[in-house]
Amino acid sequence: MTGAEKRRTARISQILDAAAHCFVEMGFHRAGMAKIAARAKMSPGHIYHYFESKEAIIAAIVDRESARAAERFAEFDAVDSTELASVMTERAVQSIAEKTDILQSVLNMEMLAECQRNPEIACIIHKHDRYVRDQLTHLIRDKLGLDLAEARTDMMMVQFSGLANRLLRNPDLDLQNMVVLMRQTMMAILSPTLGHEAK
Amino acid sequence: MTGAEKRRTARISQILDAAAHCFVEMGFHRAGMAKIAARAKMSPGHIYHYFESKEAIIAAIVDRESARAAERFAEFDAVDSTELASVMTERAVQSIAEKTDILQSVLNMEMLAECQRNPEIACIIHKHDRYVRDQLTHLIRDKLGLDLAEARTDMMMVQFSGLANRLLRNPDLDLQNMVVLMRQTMMAILSPTLGHEAK
Repeated sequence: MTGAEKRRTARISQILDAAAHCFVEMGFHRAGMAKIAARAKMSPGHIYHYFESKEAIIAAIVDRESARAAERFAEFDAVDSTELASVMTERAVQSIAEKTDILQSVLNMEMLAECQRNPEIACIIHKHDRYVRDQLTHLIRDKLGLDLAEARTDMMMVQFSGLANRLLRNPDLDLQNMVVLMRQTMMAILSPTLGHEAK
Repeated sequence: MTGAEKRRTARISQILDAAAHCFVEMGFHRAGMAKIAARAKMSPGHIYHYFESKEAIIAAIVDRESARAAERFAEFDAVDSTELASVMTERAVQSIAEKTDILQSVLNMEMLAECQRNPEIACIIHKHDRYVRDQLTHLIRDKLGLDLAEARTDMMMVQFSGLANRLLRNPDLDLQNMVVLMRQTMMAILSPTLGHEAK
């Protein structure tokens, strides 16, 4: 990466972080480009040089999330298939701690609410969700050889978004005991017999 | 209930429904009292006769939710304790269908995002959450005689809010297979041995 590229990447990252803070602090509608610029300590013109609209900034924030997810899935793809279920479970339990990142959780709520009003944002969110699901489903179906791969994927994702939601609703959440229960729930979702007795 | 009381109750219900629609369609900030009044087909003055602010309307919407939750928990309290785990599970699975109510899910996202900006709304949400948790924890601890009652309660609530979240993120969600997995996950959360092997 050249010096100019590095500066560009740093600038973009600075704008995305500023925008995320503004969306959470004032809501999507009140966080205009001028406010995002002020928070990023740039001129509005400078921001427009990188992003033409708030929607373009949201798309970039979600793309950054997708790139991070892709890195995690690449790690899983390198793991031996006999180890994969437990590695995925441990990684999932570990990310419970990351979900204590209230900023990201609130940003997700804000974007999901906006999703219903703004088809452009709905499209960004649904595309990201499909991308993450496809990778997780591939691991569950092709590496673990499990059936009901789509439903298991959605159940794993229920755990993460549900937990993020609980952290906002219950400020006294007992994370330590939750991790114990979560670990066994994740193992159950990846168990070959899950879903069969009840059919 | 007298005729006047019935009319009052109907008016309040009409306002709460109109407000819920406005909050979802335009977001909390843009849904002013005048817009809520127009949607409820009342004059703004008439609305202020019942509610002094948007926050008071939100508190009433959440109180209505709490009253509905209390009804469900009263049903559970009447069930024999040997049957309780499976009755709760079936009722939980049943309410998956209710969670397809996108309006309520989006309203919850909108309120959770607002929660971080508005301490009055945070207080309303946290109070409601504690009320629901206390009743569920009472059933799990005192009726089912299970340990880790608070953590099991939170894990059950993770399933519901997580599922509501998935319905918004994945419009193609396969609810039928999800219900099968969800039933076994709920039974696992209420199992006496859950949480013990991993300790």
